[in-house]
This record gives sequence, structure tokens and C-alpha cells, in this order.
Amino acid sequence: MFIIVGERINSSRKPIAAALQSKDRPFIRKEAGLQKGAGASMLDVNCAFNSKDEVSDMEWLVRIVQEETGSLPLSIDSPNAKAIEAGLRQHKGKALINSITLEKDRAEAILPIVKKYNADVIVLVMDEKGMPSTAGESIKLVERAIKLTQKHGIPAENLYIDPLVRPISSEPKQALEVLEAVKLIRSEYKIKTICGLSNISFGLPERSTLNSVFLAMMLNAGLDAAILDPLNKKIKAVLKASDALLARDDFCKEYIKSFRSGELK
Amino acid sequence: MFIIVGERINSSRKPIAAALQSKDRPFIRKEAGLQKGAGASMLDVNCAFNSKDEVSDMEWLVRIVQEETGSLPLSIDSPNAKAIEAGLRQHKGKALINSITLEKDRAEAILPIVKKYNADVIVLVMDEKGMPSTAGESIKLVERAIKLTQKHGIPAENLYIDPLVRPISSEPKQALEVLEAVKLIRSEYKIKTICGLSNISFGLPERSTLNSVFLAMMLNAGLDAAILDPLNKKIKAVLKASDALLARDDFCKEYIKSFRSGELK
Repeated sequence: MFIIVGERINSSRKPIAAALQSKDRPFIRKEAGLQKGAGASMLDVNCAFNSKDEVSDMEWLVRIVQEETGSLPLSIDSPNAKAIEAGLRQHKGKALINSITLEKDRAEAILPIVKKYNADVIVLVMDEKGMPSTAGESIKLVERAIKLTQKHGIPAENLYIDPLVRPISSEPKQALEVLEAVKLIRSEYKIKTICGLSNISFGLPERSTLNSVFLAMMLNAGLDAAILDPLNKKIKAVLKASDALLARDDFCKEYIKSFRSGELK
Repeated sequence: MFIIVGERINSSRKPIAAALQSKDRPFIRKEAGLQKGAGASMLDVNCAFNSKDEVSDMEWLVRIVQEETGSLPLSIDSPNAKAIEAGLRQHKGKALINSITLEKDRAEAILPIVKKYNADVIVLVMDEKGMPSTAGESIKLVERAIKLTQKHGIPAENLYIDPLVRPISSEPKQALEVLEAVKLIRSEYKIKTICGLSNISFGLPERSTLNSVFLAMMLNAGLDAAILDPLNKKIKAVLKASDALLARDDFCKEYIKSFRSGELK
């Protein structure tokens, strides 16, 4: 099954920042419930922006969201090791850490926490030298990510590689390279891949068209998970149609159900 | 460049059947011009249904369509060798024959005509035993198609393989198998692939959603050409977005132009 990580609980969105500041439980619970209802199997929580105290905000967010969604796993999203550990202490079940890079300081600060809590972890394919330009360069970083997490005693099945989607408006071959990287990571290394989609269309008009077509291609390339807005209608239609096309929807039952509830228009 | 073969001039569509019967030149020319304007680089012409005299209807169609579109190549679409040859005699430039199968009688009747007129030809992957169920079975038929056309002196670059798209409603793994076949044909044999898309969604609701998501996946798999309706808005949006994503649209110029003319909404 494809893993949808709902992206809406992020304090870079104004309504979320406001709800965090006023500790508006019903609003946060509603955002969580809507995403779960729309098929998200994980929810990302990020309070790094517009927060006076990220550590206590993260604790609060994880508690309130799981009040609503029960044991649905959360993706604890922060650059800050302290906020991540605060979230993990609150979290019920196996969480996903979003994210580390191969930059030494960031990786070494967070990997012991990943191990301690037996969490899943997203590794972004970048290091001190920056981001890869080609699928081949990505693969070299993937091999380093595998070795590094192994060294910390983290099993390969806890690993999600993010091949880093960058805008085609400035780098026209980025979609091709990322698609190729996802195919290779799946076929050669049997490791899960995840990404945020919307960067692909940065700087271009009618972004949801590009995002949804790119999602269809990534699903076909073998992407395992994506951080996205499960309430977006175009994205939802692509996900339902893709499940039907990729034989993940017995007798197209879910597709037909979505049609009947008017979600595919 | 991806090759769009416009499918609208087909006498199984009522307005086309009526225009054929009354020899309505302006109507046929308009259908041709609209498809050319929407980006078709070939136009399919089919008058096998609802026709009293397919041979003379085909001659007339080819002449009238090329009056409008100049040297734009046509896809001469018929199960009837006589109608095909009549179309080819009228045709200016290099035509595409749609289609032969590996059934001996059909292939042996049409391949000498393909050779005589130096035409391109679509080979459907089926023989006396029927259609393949898996990508592996398709590939065996592709190898036979290559040998058979070679024997008739037809160069490989004149060949288009149609992997035969069948409904996921009755055969849930068909999309996966066809996608795999297209990837293999491209990577192993360097031969062009073509298909009709819309069969994939037969028997399901909201077909254009499935067709357009499947198109995005097929484009990523390496499909070279498709027979489709270039005036369909969802299909058009996918084609424009895919060109941008697959680095076939410098600086996303065509994508932005389509957005400005309101085609992507």
C-alpha cells in the first residue's frame, strides 16, 4: 500500500501557527481527523516556524493529534534534535523522524535518538557538499546513508530515502533524475523512498497539474510514500486512479466508492 | 518528441459517419484542423464502420483531410487491405498503417503493401492464439514481429508496437503488464511503441481520470506515440505537464503558453 503522509499540520501555514499560539485543540484535532479521513496513513507535524518554544509546542502537538487519531503514526518534522526527542517521548507507536541529511553534525545528533526510540527515519540525499544533480550522484549518497544507519544499529526497513525534488523551472532535468533515482533505489537496494512533491513545480503556474502528473509518474517508478495534502482534489483523484491502475485496489472498489462520493470530479 | 495521433476522424463516431455519408467536406476539414491545431502530429482516419463503400470512403477521407493539413501524415486505419491500399495511393508523404497483427492471413495480406509504399506500420501484439497476459508474453510476440517485418524488407524504424491495452476492470494487472512491456520494448529493442489509451478504463466511471493518469505513467515508461483525442482537456493538460517534467519543453515555454491560453484549468 502507498503511504500518504498528510502535510497540513505545519506551522508555516498561518491557521496552524495561530492554532498553536492559542493552543486551539479543536482546530488541530479537526485538521488531523480530516487528513486521516482522506486516507492519510501518517501525519506530519511541524512547528519549527512561528513558534516561541518548539520543544513544548511539539510535545503538545503530538499529544493533541494522537488524541484524535489514536495510534496513527506521526512524522516528527524538525531540524532540532531536542524537539524531535520531545515529540518521540509523547508519541504512541512507531514514529517517523523527518529528517536527517548526511551532514555529519545533523546525522550524529539525531541518529542515536532514532535508535533509542526504534523510529523510522527519512534521510535526505545531501551532504556538506550539497545536493546531487543526477540519479548516479543520488545513489552514491544512498549507499552512504545505508552504511551510516547500519553503523548506528538502525535496520534498513526503518529507512526512507528522500531523493530531494527540485524545481524543473530552474533545473529542467530534475524530474527525470529523481524518477530514475526512485527506480534504482527500489530495484537495487529494496529500500523505501519518500518525497515532498510540490517543489517540482516551484515558480510555474497551475502547480497542482504538474504536481499530480509528477505524482502519477513517481507512483509508477515505485515511490513508497509521499508527504502531501490528502485533501487536494487533483492529488486525491491521482492517488485513487493509481491504486486502481497499479492493482492495489481489488475490483476497483475504492475507485468506484470515490466516484460515488463525488471525489473524482 | 511525443507523437500524438488524433483519433477523432473515425466513423464509429456518429457525426463523422454522417459527414462521410453526405460527403461534408467542411466538417471533416474542421475536425482535421482542430486536431492539428491542438498538437496532433498525425491523424488517424477510419471509415470501417457505418460505411457502404469503405474503399472509396477512405480515398475521399485521405484526400479531404490532407487538403486541410498539408503533408501531416495520416494513420490509415482499417482491417481491410483494399481500403488501406486505396488510402495509401491518395496519401502524400509517409503514412502509418493501423494495423496488422501476427495472425498469418492479416499480416501476409498487408505487409507487402507496407513495403511497397514505404509506410510505417503498427503491429498489435496478438496472434491466432489471442492476446498476451503478461509483459513476458508480449515480448515474445515483439520478437516475432521484428523477424516478420524484417523478412518483408521493412526497416525497424518503420515499426510501431502496440502492446494492446485491456480493461483493468476485468484484468486488474493489465496496466502493470503493459507499462512493463513498454519499458522493455524501449530498453531492449529500441523500437517505437504506440497505443490507444481509453480501453484501460472500460467499464469504470470517470474514465478520463483513469485515462489521463495512465497516460502520465505510460509517458514515463517511454511510450513514443498514442492514439487519443487531442481536444480532451485532461489529456491535454497531462501532455503539456509531461513535456515539462520529461525535459521536452525548453524553459517550460509551451506549458506556460498553455496556461496563459486557459488550457490547463
